Amino acid sequence: MKKIVCQKDDFSEWYNQVIQESGLSECSDVRGCMILKPYGYSLWENIKKILDEKIKSTGHKNAYFPMFIPKSYFSREASHVAGFAKECAIVTHSRLKEKDSDIIIDEDSRLEEELIVRPTSETMIWNSYKKWINSYRDLPLKLNQWCNVCRWEMRTRPFLRTSEFLWQEGHTAHSTREEAFEEVMQMLNVYYDFGKEYLAIPFIKGRKTENEKFAGAEETYTIEALMKDGKALQCGTSHLLGQHFSKAFDVKFLDKNNELKYVWGTSWGISTRLIGALIMIHGDDRGLILPPKIATIQVIIIPIFKNEDEKNRIQEYLSNIIEVLEKENIRYELDLRDQFTPGYKFNEWEVKGVPLRIVVGEKDIVNSQLELVRRDNCEKINIHKDDAVMRIIEMLNDIQGNLYKKALDFREKHTFMVDNYEDFKNKIKNKEGFVLANWDGTTETEKLIKEETQATIRCIPLENNCVGNNCVKDSCVENTCVENTFVDDNCVDGKCIKTGKHSSIKVLFAQNY
Amino acid sequence: MKKIVCQKDDFSEWYNQVIQESGLSECSDVRGCMILKPYGYSLWENIKKILDEKIKSTGHKNAYFPMFIPKSYFSREASHVAGFAKECAIVTHSRLKEKDSDIIIDEDSRLEEELIVRPTSETMIWNSYKKWINSYRDLPLKLNQWCNVCRWEMRTRPFLRTSEFLWQEGHTAHSTREEAFEEVMQMLNVYYDFGKEYLAIPFIKGRKTENEKFAGAEETYTIEALMKDGKALQCGTSHLLGQHFSKAFDVKFLDKNNELKYVWGTSWGISTRLIGALIMIHGDDRGLILPPKIATIQVIIIPIFKNEDEKNRIQEYLSNIIEVLEKENIRYELDLRDQFTPGYKFNEWEVKGVPLRIVVGEKDIVNSQLELVRRDNCEKINIHKDDAVMRIIEMLNDIQGNLYKKALDFREKHTFMVDNYEDFKNKIKNKEGFVLANWDGTTETEKLIKEETQATIRCIPLENNCVGNNCVKDSCVENTCVENTFVDDNCVDGKCIKTGKHSSIKVLFAQNY
Repeated sequence: MKKIVCQKDDFSEWYNQVIQESGLSECSDVRGCMILKPYGYSLWENIKKILDEKIKSTGHKNAYFPMFIPKSYFSREASHVAGFAKECAIVTHSRLKEKDSDIIIDEDSRLEEELIVRPTSETMIWNSYKKWINSYRDLPLKLNQWCNVCRWEMRTRPFLRTSEFLWQEGHTAHSTREEAFEEVMQMLNVYYDFGKEYLAIPFIKGRKTENEKFAGAEETYTIEALMKDGKALQCGTSHLLGQHFSKAFDVKFLDKNNELKYVWGTSWGISTRLIGALIMIHGDDRGLILPPKIATIQVIIIPIFKNEDEKNRIQEYLSNIIEVLEKENIRYELDLRDQFTPGYKFNEWEVKGVPLRIVVGEKDIVNSQLELVRRDNCEKINIHKDDAVMRIIEMLNDIQGNLYKKALDFREKHTFMVDNYEDFKNKIKNKEGFVLANWDGTTETEKLIKEETQATIRCIPLENNCVGNNCVKDSCVENTCVENTFVDDNCVDGKCIKTGKHSSIKVLFAQNY
Repeated sequence: MKKIVCQKDDFSEWYNQVIQESGLSECSDVRGCMILKPYGYSLWENIKKILDEKIKSTGHKNAYFPMFIPKSYFSREASHVAGFAKECAIVTHSRLKEKDSDIIIDEDSRLEEELIVRPTSETMIWNSYKKWINSYRDLPLKLNQWCNVCRWEMRTRPFLRTSEFLWQEGHTAHSTREEAFEEVMQMLNVYYDFGKEYLAIPFIKGRKTENEKFAGAEETYTIEALMKDGKALQCGTSHLLGQHFSKAFDVKFLDKNNELKYVWGTSWGISTRLIGALIMIHGDDRGLILPPKIATIQVIIIPIFKNEDEKNRIQEYLSNIIEVLEKENIRYELDLRDQFTPGYKFNEWEVKGVPLRIVVGEKDIVNSQLELVRRDNCEKINIHKDDAVMRIIEMLNDIQGNLYKKALDFREKHTFMVDNYEDFKNKIKNKEGFVLANWDGTTETEKLIKEETQATIRCIPLENNCVGNNCVKDSCVENTCVENTFVDDNCVDGKCIKTGKHSSIKVLFAQNY
């Protein structure tokens, strides 16, 4: 096994090496497309299973729409096509043929109309909504689909930006703007809570600027997270589409007063990118660290044996414990491979980020104990055989909580309130983290700042969001900040960090992925 | 709600109308691509959930490979490309641009190498297996993926043959032919058992002829089913790839004796086509009939009320029963809609094939009873409130069993042993069902028969397969045939139905979808 480079030496290379050595995914020969190997795909399966339940329990149904979108649909919403036209896979033909012992495109099979491999499905779905929605009784219509999408981006990185990726896209239609807005917020909160409870990721909820919003949305809301290298990652979005798509696809309904009105829309999604966030928020120089609630394997059991006799004795010794692990639905694996040393195995399962390691050797049998090693803090303790499973469950819970706390601490320590441009530029340049600063609200200034510093506005934070120990509230003493600190109306007024103009919006800047 | 055409008047139109009226799916504007509506998609989710568990419990892991296959991979296995080249979606460009207020392809974005949207993933996956397999310790490698695939077929039909469809494709690599063959049989049996237990479909297991086998396989095994119109449907396949793909992609391993050998492969899959089989095997003139174990809604509860008071009283009356249904994990729905009459609702849920209907009105409250109506045989009974759930569970089991039995009876009554070509032609022409006949084993004869009669060889039945009440065994008395009747070596010898040449293979012919 290769020694992984340190995070501080080359974070980007660390990221690539962790992905490779842990067996999450690998690059394919197709530009920007990755192969999700079993270990990586199982994380996606876990995410999918939990979120799918939440999506269903909030009243949505799953459906499946075609992956090919006719070019003419795609072009109906002007800002939508403008946003996606430059990076899409276009199907033009439907047949190959042999010629001079080579396989070439059969030009006779050219399609009448080109098809775009969906980068997102608003156009396909709103085209159906036109047929399905007539009256207020058909509303709300709340669908979701799990599928693959394609965005032919220039620079790709595994999990963060790939030509093809897996995601979930919700598309809903409502009779009023208020109801649509409630839906947008509901799903943003579903993502936020999922991140907190399962991924141990403290997201920041906020609204995107005009410049950063989804192509075709009226407003975009986002969950943003801070990676260990001080860069931000957009981890999910929830869009108020307004009437943009209902107008583009002529989707009207008769309301209770028999008036014909345009429908209000939303869409929202998360993707395999969340796995990138897991890697960069929790991982350390030894590799991945997976939160127990999402980990494929929660407990790895490594017996130490010199011969078959010892191996059998240890298996016998472990049999009761394993029975209880099964009963408690704890995801464990017993590593009985002969061809690797214990040291090699320790290393391998550390890179793979398994939260808890159990080591059992001859002396443990004698002492009726097990050795437990936590992946998150390397703590090693011996526990008695008889209360092993109870202690394991306790410890998995503790690891889950600890990972969230560490990530929140890190974010708070790396969120700064800044009121002069020199400081701002330095903090961004050094990738110190999130920088909260006043902005004059113009796209012009936003673009200027990006040009000069590479900082983008990640979001305009919603109330109730943590802004770290450099809190904007005068009353907040350093380090006493808790998660629900307000960026309230009293403390956001100030001068734009760049232009010095009066500003009543404090926004979150960072370099981003 | 539209009255559906009768099966006997126009089976094909009946099929289309059932799909539409039950809300399973609808055609999209993209040629041959359908939209899986929530009711149809939920059936796929149920199939997927159960089969995914079976696939995992037989030692396979899920992964995900890119949907785009470089043309050069695709061409590596000669018969494979020959089989799929004529019907594939080809991506040639990656960018659109605006020109004269139109959106057109940007010719500068032409890809260096064309990409094929996967019709199946052998080539992509074996290209990875080359990197992942070095030694016998890496074998067997047993992966599966759930994904969409694309086959640009000429004639399409919802669920049966669509340009894009959803499926599962397993791909395994083994060190010996024997082990690979065992895998092929294991997965064929997984499909067979799943059909029997969950879909209430009696499949026939068999081997495909050279002419009908998968493009790139050494042998293809299939599960075939008989539809109510007397045509056959191939419902799943399991292929012994032999060393075809390992040779095409140069996948070798060092065996225990340190010898370098080519790997042995298999692949196997089922798709949304199974939903087409469910429709055509169980459905009747009133619409769908879903086997309880796979039905999205197992029990529909329709209260009969004239006003809010009555509605409330019925809900109150039902509350205990509903609590127990929940506890027993029975999938039910309570149809409280005001805007439709009970008659309309009966009709709607019948079309949707819900196995059991509960009707409750004022007089049922008085009598402490419920009215139950079975979808499969229209039987109506009143049961006492206190043992309602027990009776419901019993009845769901009974419906599941009855549907299987009916399908098996139908197949047995429509499977014929024939030994002269006139009879053969008539039975095929009239779509009477499966025709079991001797064949001389040549592709030439097979093609000739197809040309003259439209009959294809569905399979060479495996031992242990039912051949209906026209059993090939002399010892078998009509109607005493049970499912495990042998097509054994003693009774298959005969003369080819077409050429009269000596034949030792009895094969199953039918018109097919």
